[in-house]
Amino acid sequence: MKEKLTIVKVGGNVINNPEALLGFLLNFSKVEGNKILVHGGGKRATQLAADLGIEATIINGRRVTDTTTLEIVTMVYAGLLNKNITATLQKFNCNALGLSGADGNSIQAHKRIVKDVDYGFAGDVDGINETNIATFIKGGMTPVFCAITHDGKGQLLNTNADTIASEIAVGMSDLYDVSLIYTFEKNGVLTSVNDDESVITDINSEKYKQLKEQEIIADGMLPKMENCFDALQKGVLEVIIGNPTVIINKKQLFTTLTL
Amino acid sequence: MKEKLTIVKVGGNVINNPEALLGFLLNFSKVEGNKILVHGGGKRATQLAADLGIEATIINGRRVTDTTTLEIVTMVYAGLLNKNITATLQKFNCNALGLSGADGNSIQAHKRIVKDVDYGFAGDVDGINETNIATFIKGGMTPVFCAITHDGKGQLLNTNADTIASEIAVGMSDLYDVSLIYTFEKNGVLTSVNDDESVITDINSEKYKQLKEQEIIADGMLPKMENCFDALQKGVLEVIIGNPTVIINKKQLFTTLTL
Repeated sequence: MKEKLTIVKVGGNVINNPEALLGFLLNFSKVEGNKILVHGGGKRATQLAADLGIEATIINGRRVTDTTTLEIVTMVYAGLLNKNITATLQKFNCNALGLSGADGNSIQAHKRIVKDVDYGFAGDVDGINETNIATFIKGGMTPVFCAITHDGKGQLLNTNADTIASEIAVGMSDLYDVSLIYTFEKNGVLTSVNDDESVITDINSEKYKQLKEQEIIADGMLPKMENCFDALQKGVLEVIIGNPTVIINKKQLFTTLTL
Repeated sequence: MKEKLTIVKVGGNVINNPEALLGFLLNFSKVEGNKILVHGGGKRATQLAADLGIEATIINGRRVTDTTTLEIVTMVYAGLLNKNITATLQKFNCNALGLSGADGNSIQAHKRIVKDVDYGFAGDVDGINETNIATFIKGGMTPVFCAITHDGKGQLLNTNADTIASEIAVGMSDLYDVSLIYTFEKNGVLTSVNDDESVITDINSEKYKQLKEQEIIADGMLPKMENCFDALQKGVLEVIIGNPTVIINKKQLFTTLTL
Protein backbone atom coordinates (compact mmCIF):
# COMPACT_ATOMS: atom_id res chain seq x y z
CA MET A 1 0.00 0.00 0.00
CA LYS A 2 1.59 3.24 -1.15
CA GLU A 3 1.32 6.53 0.74
CA LYS A 4 -0.51 9.42 -0.91
CA LEU A 5 1.30 12.35 -2.46
CA THR A 6 -0.37 15.56 -3.66
CA ILE A 7 1.43 17.61 -6.30
CA VAL A 8 0.12 21.14 -6.87
CA LYS A 9 0.99 23.43 -9.77
CA VAL A 10 0.35 27.15 -9.28
CA GLY A 11 0.77 29.58 -12.14
CA GLY A 12 1.57 33.16 -12.98
CA ASN A 13 -1.91 34.52 -12.27
CA VAL A 14 -1.43 33.78 -8.54
CA ILE A 15 2.34 34.44 -8.45
CA ASN A 16 1.79 37.93 -9.92
CA ASN A 17 -0.57 39.00 -7.13
CA PRO A 18 1.07 39.22 -3.67
CA GLU A 19 -2.24 38.97 -1.78
CA ALA A 20 -3.48 36.04 -3.87
CA LEU A 21 -0.11 34.32 -3.43
CA LEU A 22 -0.17 34.76 0.35
CA GLY A 23 -3.69 33.32 0.56
CA PHE A 24 -2.76 30.44 -1.71
CA LEU A 25 0.34 29.58 0.32
CA LEU A 26 -1.66 29.65 3.56
CA ASN A 27 -4.11 27.19 1.95
CA PHE A 28 -1.27 25.05 0.60
CA SER A 29 0.28 24.87 4.08
CA LYS A 30 -3.00 23.28 5.26
CA VAL A 31 -3.03 20.52 2.63
CA GLU A 32 -2.59 17.32 4.63
CA GLY A 33 -0.05 14.60 4.01
CA ASN A 34 2.90 14.41 1.62
CA LYS A 35 2.94 17.26 -0.88
CA ILE A 36 4.99 19.05 -3.51
CA LEU A 37 4.49 22.55 -4.95
CA VAL A 38 5.51 23.53 -8.49
CA HIS A 39 5.35 27.22 -9.30
CA GLY A 40 5.45 29.15 -12.55
CA GLY A 41 7.24 32.37 -13.16
CA GLY A 42 4.87 35.26 -13.53
CA LYS A 43 5.60 38.69 -14.87
CA ARG A 44 8.52 39.54 -12.62
CA ALA A 45 11.14 38.15 -15.03
CA THR A 46 9.67 40.23 -17.87
CA GLN A 47 9.75 43.28 -15.60
CA LEU A 48 13.38 42.71 -14.61
CA ALA A 49 14.38 42.30 -18.27
CA ALA A 50 12.59 45.59 -19.07
CA ASP A 51 14.29 47.34 -16.12
CA LEU A 52 17.64 46.15 -17.50
CA GLY A 53 16.73 47.38 -20.99
CA ILE A 54 16.79 43.87 -22.44
CA GLU A 55 14.31 43.13 -25.20
CA ALA A 56 12.74 39.70 -25.43
CA THR A 57 13.24 37.73 -28.63
CA ILE A 58 9.91 36.13 -29.54
CA ILE A 59 9.64 33.57 -32.36
CA ASN A 60 6.26 32.00 -33.26
CA GLY A 61 4.84 33.57 -30.11
CA ARG A 62 7.40 31.86 -27.89
CA ARG A 63 10.15 33.55 -25.95
CA VAL A 64 13.70 32.52 -26.86
CA THR A 65 15.87 31.80 -23.82
CA ASP A 66 19.19 33.40 -24.72
CA THR A 67 22.06 33.60 -22.21
CA THR A 68 20.84 36.83 -20.63
CA THR A 69 17.24 35.63 -20.42
CA LEU A 70 18.40 32.41 -18.75
CA GLU A 71 20.28 34.48 -16.15
CA ILE A 72 17.18 36.57 -15.53
CA VAL A 73 14.80 33.62 -15.11
CA THR A 74 17.33 31.83 -12.90
CA MET A 75 17.53 34.91 -10.67
CA VAL A 76 13.77 35.50 -10.56
CA TYR A 77 12.37 31.94 -10.54
CA ALA A 78 15.04 30.09 -8.51
CA GLY A 79 16.05 33.09 -6.38
CA LEU A 80 13.45 35.75 -5.71
CA LEU A 81 10.23 33.77 -6.17
CA ASN A 82 11.33 30.35 -4.94
CA LYS A 83 13.01 31.66 -1.77
CA ASN A 84 10.18 34.03 -0.86
CA ILE A 85 7.61 31.27 -1.37
CA THR A 86 9.73 28.94 0.77
CA ALA A 87 10.16 31.52 3.56
CA THR A 88 6.40 32.25 3.53
CA LEU A 89 5.55 28.54 3.79
CA GLN A 90 8.01 28.23 6.70
CA LYS A 91 6.06 31.01 8.41
CA PHE A 92 2.93 28.88 7.98
CA ASN A 93 4.70 25.91 9.61
CA CYS A 94 5.15 24.06 6.33
CA ASN A 95 8.75 22.83 6.20
CA ALA A 96 9.30 23.90 2.60
CA LEU A 97 12.46 23.13 0.62
CA GLY A 98 12.95 25.32 -2.44
CA LEU A 99 14.49 23.49 -5.36
CA SER A 100 15.54 23.80 -8.98
CA GLY A 101 16.02 20.68 -11.06
CA ALA A 102 19.80 20.91 -10.49
CA ASP A 103 19.37 20.55 -6.71
CA GLY A 104 19.86 16.93 -5.73
CA ASN A 105 19.80 16.25 -9.49
CA SER A 106 16.00 16.32 -9.05
CA ILE A 107 15.06 17.01 -12.68
CA GLN A 108 17.30 16.29 -15.65
CA ALA A 109 16.49 17.78 -19.03
CA HIS A 110 18.17 18.42 -22.36
CA LYS A 111 18.37 21.58 -24.40
CA ARG A 112 15.50 21.53 -26.87
CA ILE A 113 16.64 20.06 -30.19
CA VAL A 114 16.87 22.76 -32.86
CA LYS A 115 14.52 22.04 -35.78
CA ASP A 116 13.18 25.15 -37.49
CA VAL A 117 13.70 27.43 -34.52
CA ASP A 118 16.44 27.60 -31.88
CA TYR A 119 14.62 28.36 -28.63
CA GLY A 120 17.96 28.67 -26.82
CA PHE A 121 18.28 27.35 -23.27
CA ALA A 122 14.81 25.81 -23.15
CA GLY A 123 14.76 22.39 -21.50
CA ASP A 124 12.76 19.26 -22.35
CA VAL A 125 12.60 16.95 -19.33
CA ASP A 126 14.31 13.53 -19.48
CA GLY A 127 13.35 12.34 -16.02
CA ILE A 128 13.38 12.96 -12.30
CA ASN A 129 15.39 11.54 -9.41
CA GLU A 130 12.53 10.06 -7.38
CA THR A 131 14.90 8.66 -4.74
CA ASN A 132 16.27 12.09 -3.81
CA ILE A 133 12.83 13.71 -3.90
CA ALA A 134 11.49 10.91 -1.66
CA THR A 135 14.41 11.55 0.74
CA PHE A 136 13.15 15.10 1.22
CA ILE A 137 9.53 13.98 1.73
CA LYS A 138 10.46 11.20 4.17
CA GLY A 139 12.54 13.80 6.03
CA GLY A 140 9.31 15.72 6.67
CA MET A 141 9.99 18.40 4.08
CA THR A 142 7.82 19.80 1.28
CA PRO A 143 9.70 20.27 -2.01
CA VAL A 144 8.89 23.54 -3.81
CA PHE A 145 10.06 23.46 -7.43
CA CYS A 146 10.66 26.40 -9.71
CA ALA A 147 10.74 25.89 -13.47
CA ILE A 148 14.52 25.66 -13.88
CA THR A 149 16.15 22.31 -14.69
CA HIS A 150 19.67 21.22 -15.68
CA ASP A 151 21.27 18.91 -18.24
CA GLY A 152 23.76 17.15 -15.94
CA LYS A 153 26.60 18.82 -17.84
CA GLY A 154 26.56 22.11 -15.95
CA GLN A 155 23.89 23.86 -18.00
CA LEU A 156 20.72 25.27 -16.41
CA LEU A 157 17.60 25.21 -18.60
CA ASN A 158 14.33 27.16 -18.61
CA THR A 159 11.48 24.64 -18.53
CA ASN A 160 7.68 24.70 -18.71
CA ALA A 161 6.22 24.47 -15.18
CA ASP A 162 3.17 22.40 -16.28
CA THR A 163 5.54 19.85 -17.78
CA ILE A 164 7.67 19.78 -14.63
CA ALA A 165 4.56 19.10 -12.54
CA SER A 166 3.44 16.19 -14.74
CA GLU A 167 6.95 14.72 -14.99
CA ILE A 168 7.33 14.81 -11.20
CA ALA A 169 3.86 13.26 -10.83
CA VAL A 170 4.71 10.42 -13.24
CA GLY A 171 8.13 9.80 -11.67
CA MET A 172 6.83 9.80 -8.09
CA SER A 173 4.03 7.36 -9.03
CA ASP A 174 6.55 4.53 -8.65
CA LEU A 175 6.67 5.29 -4.93
CA TYR A 176 3.39 7.07 -4.09
CA ASP A 177 -0.29 7.21 -5.03
CA VAL A 178 -0.14 10.58 -6.75
CA SER A 179 -2.85 13.21 -7.18
CA LEU A 180 -1.79 16.01 -9.53
CA ILE A 181 -3.64 19.32 -9.14
CA TYR A 182 -3.38 22.01 -11.80
CA THR A 183 -4.70 25.30 -10.47
CA PHE A 184 -5.60 28.04 -12.95
CA GLU A 185 -7.95 31.00 -13.36
CA LYS A 186 -11.03 28.89 -14.25
CA ASN A 187 -13.06 26.51 -12.09
CA GLY A 188 -12.15 23.53 -14.27
CA VAL A 189 -12.72 22.21 -17.79
CA LEU A 190 -15.74 24.13 -19.07
CA THR A 191 -18.37 23.21 -21.68
CA SER A 192 -18.75 26.93 -22.36
CA VAL A 193 -15.55 28.92 -22.00
CA ASN A 194 -17.33 32.08 -20.81
CA ASP A 195 -19.52 30.32 -18.24
CA ASP A 196 -17.39 29.54 -15.22
CA GLU A 197 -20.23 27.41 -13.79
CA SER A 198 -20.24 25.05 -16.78
CA VAL A 199 -17.64 22.75 -15.22
CA ILE A 200 -17.41 19.16 -16.42
CA THR A 201 -16.81 17.50 -13.05
CA ASP A 202 -15.57 14.08 -14.18
CA ILE A 203 -13.76 13.12 -17.35
CA ASN A 204 -12.41 9.65 -18.07
CA SER A 205 -10.72 8.43 -21.25
CA GLU A 206 -14.03 7.46 -22.84
CA LYS A 207 -15.69 10.78 -22.03
CA TYR A 208 -12.59 12.67 -23.17
CA LYS A 209 -12.85 10.97 -26.56
CA GLN A 210 -16.51 12.07 -26.84
CA LEU A 211 -15.72 15.65 -25.78
CA LYS A 212 -13.02 15.83 -28.44
CA GLU A 213 -15.37 14.48 -31.11
CA GLN A 214 -18.04 16.99 -30.08
CA GLU A 215 -15.33 19.69 -30.18
CA ILE A 216 -16.28 20.77 -26.66
CA ILE A 217 -12.61 20.39 -25.80
CA ALA A 218 -10.55 22.10 -28.49
CA ASP A 219 -7.74 24.55 -29.23
CA GLY A 220 -5.45 25.48 -26.35
CA MET A 221 -7.09 23.02 -23.96
CA LEU A 222 -6.23 20.01 -26.13
CA PRO A 223 -2.46 19.82 -25.51
CA LYS A 224 -3.06 20.34 -21.76
CA MET A 225 -5.55 17.48 -21.69
CA GLU A 226 -3.30 15.21 -23.76
CA ASN A 227 -0.54 15.93 -21.24
CA CYS A 228 -2.87 15.03 -18.32
CA PHE A 229 -4.06 11.75 -19.88
CA ASP A 230 -0.46 10.89 -20.70
CA ALA A 231 0.38 11.31 -16.99
CA LEU A 232 -2.60 9.11 -16.04
CA GLN A 233 -1.49 6.40 -18.46
CA LYS A 234 1.97 6.52 -16.88
CA GLY A 235 0.66 5.83 -13.37
CA VAL A 236 -0.73 9.06 -11.88
CA LEU A 237 -4.00 8.19 -10.08
CA GLU A 238 -5.96 11.37 -10.78
CA VAL A 239 -5.50 14.83 -12.21
CA ILE A 240 -7.59 17.66 -10.79
CA ILE A 241 -8.09 20.94 -12.64
CA GLY A 242 -9.62 23.85 -10.78
CA ASN A 243 -9.16 27.30 -9.32
CA PRO A 244 -6.49 27.77 -6.63
CA THR A 245 -8.86 27.19 -3.67
CA VAL A 246 -9.53 23.64 -4.90
CA ILE A 247 -6.47 22.49 -2.97
CA ILE A 248 -8.36 22.74 0.34
CA ASN A 249 -12.02 23.07 -0.67
CA LYS A 250 -13.45 20.02 -2.41
CA LYS A 251 -17.05 21.26 -2.04
CA GLN A 252 -16.71 23.63 -5.00
CA LEU A 253 -16.81 22.89 -8.72
CA PHE A 254 -13.70 21.37 -10.28
CA THR A 255 -12.73 18.76 -12.87
CA THR A 256 -11.33 15.33 -12.02
CA LEU A 257 -9.57 13.38 -14.75
CA THR A 258 -9.10 9.61 -14.44
CA LEU A 259 -8.32 6.83 -16.92
CA MET B 1 32.42 7.28 16.81
CA LYS B 2 31.14 10.17 14.71
CA GLU B 3 31.59 10.38 10.95
CA LYS B 4 33.72 13.20 9.56
CA LEU B 5 32.23 16.27 7.90
CA THR B 6 34.21 18.89 5.98
CA ILE B 7 32.70 22.37 5.67
CA VAL B 8 34.30 24.68 3.13
CA LYS B 9 33.75 28.42 2.79
CA VAL B 10 34.66 30.02 -0.54
CA GLY B 11 34.58 33.77 -0.97
CA GLY B 12 34.11 36.50 -3.50
CA ASN B 13 37.66 36.39 -4.88
CA VAL B 14 36.97 32.94 -6.36
CA ILE B 15 33.26 33.54 -7.13
CA ASN B 16 34.14 36.64 -9.19
CA ASN B 17 36.46 34.73 -11.53
CA PRO B 18 34.69 32.10 -13.71
CA GLU B 19 37.89 30.12 -14.41
CA ALA B 20 38.97 30.14 -10.76
CA LEU B 21 35.45 29.10 -9.73
CA LEU B 22 35.39 26.19 -12.18
CA GLY B 23 38.78 24.93 -10.95
CA PHE B 24 37.71 25.31 -7.34
CA LEU B 25 34.45 23.39 -7.90
CA LEU B 26 36.33 20.58 -9.67
CA ASN B 27 38.62 20.36 -6.63
CA PHE B 28 35.67 20.53 -4.23
CA SER B 29 33.96 17.67 -6.09
CA LYS B 30 37.04 15.54 -5.28
CA VAL B 31 36.97 16.21 -1.52
CA GLU B 32 36.20 12.81 -0.01
CA GLY B 33 33.47 12.01 2.49
CA ASN B 34 30.62 14.14 3.83
CA LYS B 35 30.92 17.79 2.88
CA ILE B 36 29.14 21.14 2.77
CA LEU B 37 29.98 24.22 0.70
CA VAL B 38 29.20 27.78 1.81
CA HIS B 39 29.70 30.49 -0.79
CA GLY B 40 29.88 34.25 -0.56
CA GLY B 41 28.39 36.68 -3.01
CA GLY B 42 31.02 38.40 -5.07
CA LYS B 43 30.63 41.48 -7.20
CA ARG B 44 27.70 40.30 -9.30
CA ALA B 45 25.07 41.76 -6.92
CA THR B 46 26.83 45.14 -7.00
CA GLN B 47 26.91 44.94 -10.80
CA LEU B 48 23.19 44.10 -11.03
CA ALA B 49 22.33 46.99 -8.71
CA ALA B 50 24.40 49.33 -10.90
CA ASP B 51 22.73 47.99 -14.08
CA LEU B 52 19.36 48.75 -12.46
CA GLY B 53 20.53 52.24 -11.50
CA ILE B 54 20.25 51.52 -7.78
CA GLU B 55 22.79 53.19 -5.53
CA ALA B 56 24.09 51.34 -2.51
CA THR B 57 23.59 52.96 0.90
CA ILE B 58 26.81 52.53 2.87
CA ILE B 59 27.00 53.42 6.58
CA ASN B 60 30.28 53.02 8.51
CA GLY B 61 31.68 51.16 5.51
CA ARG B 62 28.88 48.58 5.58
CA ARG B 63 26.18 48.15 3.00
CA VAL B 64 22.61 48.65 4.22
CA THR B 65 20.25 45.91 3.03
CA ASP B 66 17.11 47.82 2.07
CA THR B 67 14.15 46.09 0.38
CA THR B 68 15.57 46.46 -3.13
CA THR B 69 19.04 45.33 -2.09
CA LEU B 70 17.54 42.26 -0.41
CA GLU B 71 15.73 41.40 -3.64
CA ILE B 72 18.95 41.78 -5.60
CA VAL B 73 21.07 39.62 -3.28
CA THR B 74 18.30 37.00 -3.14
CA MET B 75 18.26 36.86 -6.94
CA VAL B 76 22.04 36.79 -7.33
CA TYR B 77 23.14 34.69 -4.32
CA ALA B 78 20.25 32.20 -4.03
CA GLY B 79 19.39 32.19 -7.75
CA LEU B 80 22.17 32.88 -10.24
CA LEU B 81 25.25 31.90 -8.20
CA ASN B 82 23.81 29.08 -6.09
CA LYS B 83 22.11 27.31 -9.01
CA ASN B 84 25.07 27.64 -11.37
CA ILE B 85 27.44 26.33 -8.67
CA THR B 86 25.04 23.45 -8.03
CA ALA B 87 24.70 22.59 -11.74
CA THR B 88 28.50 22.71 -12.16
CA LEU B 89 29.04 20.37 -9.20
CA GLN B 90 26.44 17.99 -10.67
CA LYS B 91 28.53 17.95 -13.86
CA PHE B 92 31.50 16.88 -11.71
CA ASN B 93 29.41 14.02 -10.22
CA CYS B 94 28.96 15.76 -6.88
CA ASN B 95 25.27 15.47 -5.94
CA ALA B 96 24.98 19.11 -4.85
CA LEU B 97 21.86 20.57 -3.23
CA GLY B 98 21.69 24.37 -3.37
CA LEU B 99 20.12 25.91 -0.28
CA SER B 100 19.25 29.16 1.42
CA GLY B 101 18.62 29.19 5.14
CA ALA B 102 14.85 29.15 4.46
CA ASP B 103 15.08 25.78 2.68
CA GLY B 104 14.27 23.01 5.11
CA ASN B 105 14.43 25.74 7.77
CA SER B 106 18.19 25.12 7.64
CA ILE B 107 19.35 28.43 9.13
CA GLN B 108 17.19 30.67 11.28
CA ALA B 109 18.25 34.23 11.97
CA HIS B 110 16.78 37.48 13.23
CA LYS B 111 16.94 40.93 11.73
CA ARG B 112 19.90 42.73 13.27
CA ILE B 113 18.80 44.76 16.28
CA VAL B 114 18.94 48.50 15.53
CA LYS B 115 21.35 50.31 17.85
CA ASP B 116 23.03 53.34 16.28
CA VAL B 117 22.55 52.17 12.70
CA ASP B 118 19.71 50.31 10.97
CA TYR B 119 21.43 47.87 8.61
CA GLY B 120 18.05 46.82 7.22
CA PHE B 121 17.45 43.19 6.33
CA ALA B 122 20.77 41.94 7.69
CA GLY B 123 20.46 38.69 9.61
CA ASP B 124 22.24 37.50 12.76
CA VAL B 125 22.08 33.71 13.00
CA ASP B 126 20.10 32.08 15.84
CA GLY B 127 20.82 28.48 14.94
CA ILE B 128 20.69 25.74 12.36
CA ASN B 129 18.43 22.73 11.83
CA GLU B 130 21.08 20.00 12.06
CA THR B 131 18.48 17.22 11.64
CA ASN B 132 17.36 18.45 8.23
CA ILE B 133 20.91 19.15 7.07
CA ALA B 134 21.92 15.63 8.21
CA THR B 135 18.97 14.23 6.20
CA PHE B 136 20.50 15.70 3.05
CA ILE B 137 23.97 14.36 3.85
CA LYS B 138 22.71 10.88 4.76
CA GLY B 139 20.77 10.95 1.48
CA GLY B 140 24.12 11.20 -0.33
CA MET B 141 23.78 14.89 -1.13
CA THR B 142 26.17 17.81 -0.65
CA PRO B 143 24.48 20.95 0.71
CA VAL B 144 25.63 24.18 -0.95
CA PHE B 145 24.63 27.23 1.08
CA CYS B 146 24.36 30.80 -0.13
CA ALA B 147 24.41 33.64 2.39
CA ILE B 148 20.64 34.17 2.64
CA THR B 149 18.79 33.13 5.81
CA HIS B 150 15.22 33.62 7.11
CA ASP B 151 13.56 34.60 10.37
CA GLY B 152 10.84 31.92 10.45
CA LYS B 153 8.24 34.67 10.01
CA GLY B 154 8.46 34.90 6.23
CA GLN B 155 11.35 37.35 6.02
CA LEU B 156 14.54 36.54 4.11
CA LEU B 157 17.74 38.07 5.51
CA ASN B 158 21.17 38.90 4.04
CA THR B 159 23.79 37.20 6.22
CA ASN B 160 27.57 37.07 6.42
CA ALA B 161 28.86 33.90 4.72
CA ASP B 162 31.78 33.44 7.18
CA THR B 163 29.28 33.46 10.04
CA ILE B 164 27.02 30.97 8.24
CA ALA B 165 29.97 28.61 7.78
CA SER B 166 30.94 28.73 11.45
CA GLU B 167 27.33 28.42 12.67
CA ILE B 168 26.79 25.35 10.46
CA ALA B 169 30.11 23.91 11.70
CA VAL B 170 29.13 24.42 15.35
CA GLY B 171 25.61 23.04 14.86
CA MET B 172 26.74 19.96 12.92
CA SER B 173 29.38 19.17 15.59
CA ASP B 174 26.62 17.50 17.61
CA LEU B 175 26.42 14.83 14.91
CA TYR B 176 29.78 14.85 13.11
CA ASP B 177 33.52 15.41 13.67
CA VAL B 178 33.70 18.73 11.84
CA SER B 179 36.64 20.32 10.00
CA LEU B 180 35.91 23.90 8.94
CA ILE B 181 38.01 25.24 6.06
CA TYR B 182 38.08 28.97 5.29
CA THR B 183 39.59 29.58 1.87
CA PHE B 184 40.82 33.07 1.03
CA GLU B 185 43.41 34.85 -1.10
CA LYS B 186 46.35 34.18 1.28
CA ASN B 187 48.07 30.91 2.14
CA GLY B 188 47.05 31.14 5.80
CA VAL B 189 47.65 33.29 8.86
CA LEU B 190 50.87 35.17 8.14
CA THR B 191 53.53 36.61 10.45
CA SER B 192 54.24 39.20 7.77
CA VAL B 193 51.19 40.27 5.78
CA ASN B 194 53.16 40.88 2.56
CA ASP B 195 55.10 37.60 2.70
CA ASP B 196 52.78 34.82 1.56
CA GLU B 197 55.37 32.23 2.65
CA SER B 198 55.32 33.40 6.30
CA VAL B 199 52.47 31.05 7.21
CA ILE B 200 52.01 30.10 10.86
CA THR B 201 51.13 26.42 10.31
CA ASP B 202 49.67 25.58 13.72
CA ILE B 203 47.93 27.82 16.22
CA ASN B 204 46.33 26.59 19.42
CA SER B 205 44.70 28.70 22.15
CA GLU B 206 47.99 29.22 23.98
CA LYS B 207 49.88 30.24 20.86
CA TYR B 208 46.99 32.48 19.78
CA LYS B 209 47.27 34.33 23.11
CA GLN B 210 51.01 34.88 22.50
CA LEU B 211 50.46 36.04 18.89
CA LYS B 212 47.90 38.57 20.12
CA GLU B 213 50.26 39.85 22.83
CA GLN B 214 53.07 40.16 20.29
CA GLU B 215 50.61 41.97 17.98
CA ILE B 216 51.47 39.56 15.16
CA ILE B 217 47.73 38.93 14.84
CA ALA B 218 45.96 42.29 14.83
CA ASP B 219 43.39 44.49 13.10
CA GLY B 220 41.08 42.78 10.60
CA MET B 221 42.40 39.31 11.41
CA LEU B 222 41.39 39.53 15.09
CA PRO B 223 37.59 39.19 14.70
CA LYS B 224 38.06 36.33 12.21
CA MET B 225 40.31 34.50 14.66
CA GLU B 226 37.97 35.13 17.59
CA ASN B 227 35.18 33.67 15.47
CA CYS B 228 37.29 30.56 14.71
CA PHE B 229 38.27 29.93 18.33
CA ASP B 230 34.66 30.44 19.36
CA ALA B 231 33.68 27.65 16.91
CA LEU B 232 36.44 25.40 18.32
CA GLN B 233 35.23 26.01 21.86
CA LYS B 234 31.72 25.03 20.74
CA GLY B 235 32.81 21.64 19.41
CA VAL B 236 34.39 22.07 15.97
CA LEU B 237 37.50 19.83 15.82
CA GLU B 238 39.73 22.01 13.67
CA VAL B 239 39.63 25.17 11.58
CA ILE B 240 41.88 25.37 8.53
CA ILE B 241 42.71 28.69 6.86
CA GLY B 242 44.39 28.65 3.46
CA ASN B 243 44.15 29.37 -0.23
CA PRO B 244 41.41 27.61 -2.25
CA THR B 245 43.59 24.64 -3.29
CA VAL B 246 44.05 23.65 0.38
CA ILE B 247 40.81 21.65 0.12
CA ILE B 248 42.58 18.89 -1.82
CA ASN B 249 46.29 19.61 -1.41
CA LYS B 250 47.55 19.26 2.16
CA LYS B 251 51.22 19.35 1.10
CA GLN B 252 51.18 23.12 0.76
CA LEU B 253 51.40 25.81 3.44
CA PHE B 254 48.24 26.52 5.45
CA THR B 255 47.17 27.29 9.00
CA THR B 256 45.46 24.82 11.30
CA LEU B 257 43.67 26.16 14.37
CA THR B 258 42.87 23.84 17.30
CA LEU B 259 41.99 24.43 20.92
